[in-house]
Amino acid sequence: MLVVMRQNANQKDIAAVVAAIEARGLKAHPIPGAQRTAIGITGNKGAVEAAAFESLPGVLEVIPVSHAYKLVSREVKSESSVVRIGPVEVGGPRFVVVAGPCAVESLEQALTIAKAVKAAGAHLLRGGAFKPRTSPYSFQGLGEAGLKILAQAREATGLPVVTEAVDLESLELVEQYADAIQIGARNMQNFTLLRRAGRSRKPVLLKRGMSATLEEFLMSAEYILSEGNYNVVLCERGVRTFSDFSRNTLDLAVVPAVKRISHLPILVDPSHGTGRREKVAPLSRAAAAVGADGLMVEVHHDPDRALSDGPQSITPPMFEALIHDLGLIVPVIGRTL
Amino acid sequence: MLVVMRQNANQKDIAAVVAAIEARGLKAHPIPGAQRTAIGITGNKGAVEAAAFESLPGVLEVIPVSHAYKLVSREVKSESSVVRIGPVEVGGPRFVVVAGPCAVESLEQALTIAKAVKAAGAHLLRGGAFKPRTSPYSFQGLGEAGLKILAQAREATGLPVVTEAVDLESLELVEQYADAIQIGARNMQNFTLLRRAGRSRKPVLLKRGMSATLEEFLMSAEYILSEGNYNVVLCERGVRTFSDFSRNTLDLAVVPAVKRISHLPILVDPSHGTGRREKVAPLSRAAAAVGADGLMVEVHHDPDRALSDGPQSITPPMFEALIHDLGLIVPVIGRTL
Amino acid sequence: MLVVMRQNANQKDIAAVVAAIEARGLKAHPIPGAQRTAIGITGNKGAVEAAAFESLPGVLEVIPVSHAYKLVSREVKSESSVVRIGPVEVGGPRFVVVAGPCAVESLEQALTIAKAVKAAGAHLLRGGAFKPRTSPYSFQGLGEAGLKILAQAREATGLPVVTEAVDLESLELVEQYADAIQIGARNMQNFTLLRRAGRSRKPVLLKRGMSATLEEFLMSAEYILSEGNYNVVLCERGVRTFSDFSRNTLDLAVVPAVKRISHLPILVDPSHGTGRREKVAPLSRAAAAVGADGLMVEVHHDPDRALSDGPQSITPPMFEALIHDLGLIVPVIGRTL
Amino acid sequence: MLVVMRQNANQKDIAAVVAAIEARGLKAHPIPGAQRTAIGITGNKGAVEAAAFESLPGVLEVIPVSHAYKLVSREVKSESSVVRIGPVEVGGPRFVVVAGPCAVESLEQALTIAKAVKAAGAHLLRGGAFKPRTSPYSFQGLGEAGLKILAQAREATGLPVVTEAVDLESLELVEQYADAIQIGARNMQNFTLLRRAGRSRKPVLLKRGMSATLEEFLMSAEYILSEGNYNVVLCERGVRTFSDFSRNTLDLAVVPAVKRISHLPILVDPSHGTGRREKVAPLSRAAAAVGADGLMVEVHHDPDRALSDGPQSITPPMFEALIHDLGLIVPVIGRTL
Repeated sequence: MLVVMRQNANQKDIAAVVAAIEARGLKAHPIPGAQRTAIGITGNKGAVEAAAFESLPGVLEVIPVSHAYKLVSREVKSESSVVRIGPVEVGGPRFVVVAGPCAVESLEQALTIAKAVKAAGAHLLRGGAFKPRTSPYSFQGLGEAGLKILAQAREATGLPVVTEAVDLESLELVEQYADAIQIGARNMQNFTLLRRAGRSRKPVLLKRGMSATLEEFLMSAEYILSEGNYNVVLCERGVRTFSDFSRNTLDLAVVPAVKRISHLPILVDPSHGTGRREKVAPLSRAAAAVGADGLMVEVHHDPDRALSDGPQSITPPMFEALIHDLGLIVPVIGRTL
Repeated sequence: MLVVMRQNANQKDIAAVVAAIEARGLKAHPIPGAQRTAIGITGNKGAVEAAAFESLPGVLEVIPVSHAYKLVSREVKSESSVVRIGPVEVGGPRFVVVAGPCAVESLEQALTIAKAVKAAGAHLLRGGAFKPRTSPYSFQGLGEAGLKILAQAREATGLPVVTEAVDLESLELVEQYADAIQIGARNMQNFTLLRRAGRSRKPVLLKRGMSATLEEFLMSAEYILSEGNYNVVLCERGVRTFSDFSRNTLDLAVVPAVKRISHLPILVDPSHGTGRREKVAPLSRAAAAVGADGLMVEVHHDPDRALSDGPQSITPPMFEALIHDLGLIVPVIGRTL
Repeated sequence: MLVVMRQNANQKDIAAVVAAIEARGLKAHPIPGAQRTAIGITGNKGAVEAAAFESLPGVLEVIPVSHAYKLVSREVKSESSVVRIGPVEVGGPRFVVVAGPCAVESLEQALTIAKAVKAAGAHLLRGGAFKPRTSPYSFQGLGEAGLKILAQAREATGLPVVTEAVDLESLELVEQYADAIQIGARNMQNFTLLRRAGRSRKPVLLKRGMSATLEEFLMSAEYILSEGNYNVVLCERGVRTFSDFSRNTLDLAVVPAVKRISHLPILVDPSHGTGRREKVAPLSRAAAAVGADGLMVEVHHDPDRALSDGPQSITPPMFEALIHDLGLIVPVIGRTL
Repeated sequence: MLVVMRQNANQKDIAAVVAAIEARGLKAHPIPGAQRTAIGITGNKGAVEAAAFESLPGVLEVIPVSHAYKLVSREVKSESSVVRIGPVEVGGPRFVVVAGPCAVESLEQALTIAKAVKAAGAHLLRGGAFKPRTSPYSFQGLGEAGLKILAQAREATGLPVVTEAVDLESLELVEQYADAIQIGARNMQNFTLLRRAGRSRKPVLLKRGMSATLEEFLMSAEYILSEGNYNVVLCERGVRTFSDFSRNTLDLAVVPAVKRISHLPILVDPSHGTGRREKVAPLSRAAAAVGADGLMVEVHHDPDRALSDGPQSITPPMFEALIHDLGLIVPVIGRTL
């Protein structure tokens, strides 16, 4: 933390700030400049709240310097983490493709799609059994029945299953049936759910909240790691901005930003990120090119009749074409498909 | 819903869209214009998903027309709702002031502040026992012990208590000790929690999410009402934007916007809305002037030592001065304090 | 500027950063902490570009500390500035109301509205002769003819005139006919126009850009002051966010934020700030209550036939009622109307 | 335009809206639904202002349906436009790379960089002679001397030159020396400048404003086309959001969105879009993969000493490596480099 003094702050003001810092058992480092003095603070173990200083006389502003994340940071673990979902390694040399329907609707639908994405080259199967929906009157998912269907689809295709848990109850079930637990954007700061996921033995796929800063996104991952579960995969799925031609604004720059400061792998979800079928393939290619560790994409064999998010689902032939394109792009960033 | 055709769409395209609409049991109303044709859809009970139509040949775009909220709408109930928290009426002629510490820290702290805000004229006591914190390493609240302290503060001052529940477990406890259940911004789309609050007999204070549209905010209230609990008070607490001199951007225009389309009362929280002590009083006055039904404000007798959110807490003397100012402003909008 | 080193940076890394700082004739102040070292930089006259340091080995990040604004800052001039527009003082004890049509449409229209707002108590007349319009096919204003009409309206009512200049040519004309030059939001970073306004003898009303940070807003004012024109009035008119129920999100917290760091007066424009007639009066009251130095509001006697921005114009009777309310609110913040 | 009536609107209300529509010489198309009536409007040549209808009794809301752009629309010209800058075709089979320094600093600097980017495979040279800077105290460019240097660099390398004009005066000069006129993000709604560029015979590169919607972006291009200059190339350069780890949020989804509704080519500028050297290459690859027509990238041989925007400039070796990667990616979208 750095306390910046006003130009007209006098020696008494500065001494008072130094005293306030030392009263908290911290160390003050005054830096006298030509125009003003700044005072560095060291000795704190976590973040020091700025409150104590910013209302003292002569203080212009207080600038936080240290970040609160620890376990997720590359400073703590410099090599990139590889997270195993079933036998599939996320964050390793392979660019991982998670595909499947937005929501599980029936055994037949799930099997049809699972087989199609498997045939095209997907590595993991996605599909929602518990759907967080804006409206209480929308289809909310099949619940445990949906999980059973996903398990059958895994048996039929060999694809490990990633599916969302929306509360403690559904998390217990997801843990039981699936290979990875997804925490959705709306629950990114559901800290009770994060802690519980942190006590699970299953890997966790954590989606970025709609207006989460990078710091908040990493702190939510930190919640999971701090409970002992180090198998966390991040996922960018678009943020909310004024930009109105897509459902969300896919913030691809978060990928190199995460890579720089964290060791955790990160996927991109262009389906929620754009909300529009015709933008899914272009943004999927962009996600591969930007250096993401993989992709999470919604596929539906009959999207116009899908019970949820049809407009952002691509069809199996579109998915096949996409996989073909990805196969050409990922070697550029030193990966295989 | 309105399907807008491209200029070069031909009669066959139009006929196909009409057929697709009718195949879903809905009614199509083609509107031929000079440049293009649009096709209105009626007969749907809820929202019709746009997906089915927007990828048909000749379709330019599909524009949703109806809103998904029902029970919260002024179209369903035209007179404004009054919600009772203990004996205090929110949404009636009185401008309601909820005040207290961000977090309950000790019996002494809570009593000191509760007595101070009561003496100054507050109507309800706030104070967090369960704190959703960005970092797992920050103070998370006293839990049930905090609720017991709040109950003692109520006994000592007569102020009914509003406090946050962060999950099902804490909601059970809040329901037992407090007079109103607060759902925080981060949980605005925690639908499991909303449904459970909807089955409670206690009134619910629902805070707007950091990037929630008005439609989403009202839909979250709809979740609560749809379970049978009609006692919902909304609360604006700032949204996330690029604007960087305050913690959030307080979106006061939401107050007249809510008043226009919903019968529910709405408060404003300028403490979280600004995150800065010196902005709390100005924005509180603005909230009163804009026509909010009340205010939720953090007060701490020693904010520099507060365990959470000290920088946005005002002191009891600042609170007293604020109440004085509010007393002059609220009559302008036909209210008493 | 503060250079924050990585935890694993060694003494050689630190020495290299210190050397790089000193090579630029600046002074380095290493602050060794328990976990990492930070290095303060002093001796720079303006902002030091972070580039030179952030790519050096061992550097985690570079944090800018000083701001670029000078002349607009309260550090340079601690007392609040009062700007005279004709005989009207903006920033003094009076809460100043600027009112009039969005665009000047005809002599009759301008006179009708000018007389109405004068009668109701406005202090300054607004009205656009040069209109920056999103579409090339929209009404672009009457140009010089409009300025002549405004001058006639001033003669008829005694109200000084504020009107927008959109380029150098229109600025010459506005300077000639009007009492203050408005620079609109879209031109907030039209630096050629700002410099020219800085060489004018007429006061300047500078509107905040749609996505301008506070720093950028003040820097644009700095452009004007740096050319010698100290008579600048700022104006908040809403920023662009995801929030979709109003045309813009009126960011009222900017008022206390400006007051804290700058001596310049600031008005609020709730007409553009909301874009909706029914929100103008509530947000106008809020602007007065938050401590703005005045208001800029669009009034039209027949808004449904207005050639531009009809939906956000209020009628003369609505304006009269608003003035009545303002008369009750402004004394609360120590002002008269 | 569609007028949506309230559920409780009666026949008289509906008749009054129909009458108001017809009074304007337009045609009303009532669509009676189960819950409410909507009324379509046709016969209008441009956008009908919603104002006239939204305050009539019984009206719930007015929804605009038609867009204001014409000449830029694919509905008017279905095949994609190819814009020639010198002999280089933008929008054709070649993926076009524009590279060079942020600002021209000296002949030696410009030649060094121009030769380096030419050798690596760039097609066009960029370099600012007129720099719009947030601070009046920052380096503002060499002006005409800078243009002369660019012309010399073109002579030495054969690369056509793209450079920014910031006002009418600089546009005259840019027109004279350069091969394409750049309009920067801050001037995207400087309509006087757009009109003048529309009367130029040189092609125009129009950058998206920091908070421009797609509609506004296209309308600014429409200004240029409406004056007769059809040679417009769009350029995405990041938008302003809450996201704080990059200078702007690069909104790559705008590329397929533009392609869908406009025939104009679109480039991506990842240098301004991210503001960070280490993110330029990843986002450049992403821009190629998403289907942009080309790239505009800042290169500097000594970025730490650059007079402007050093932190976002890549070095010639980084540029070479990028060109190599692009050569592998662009064939995936059917292009050559």
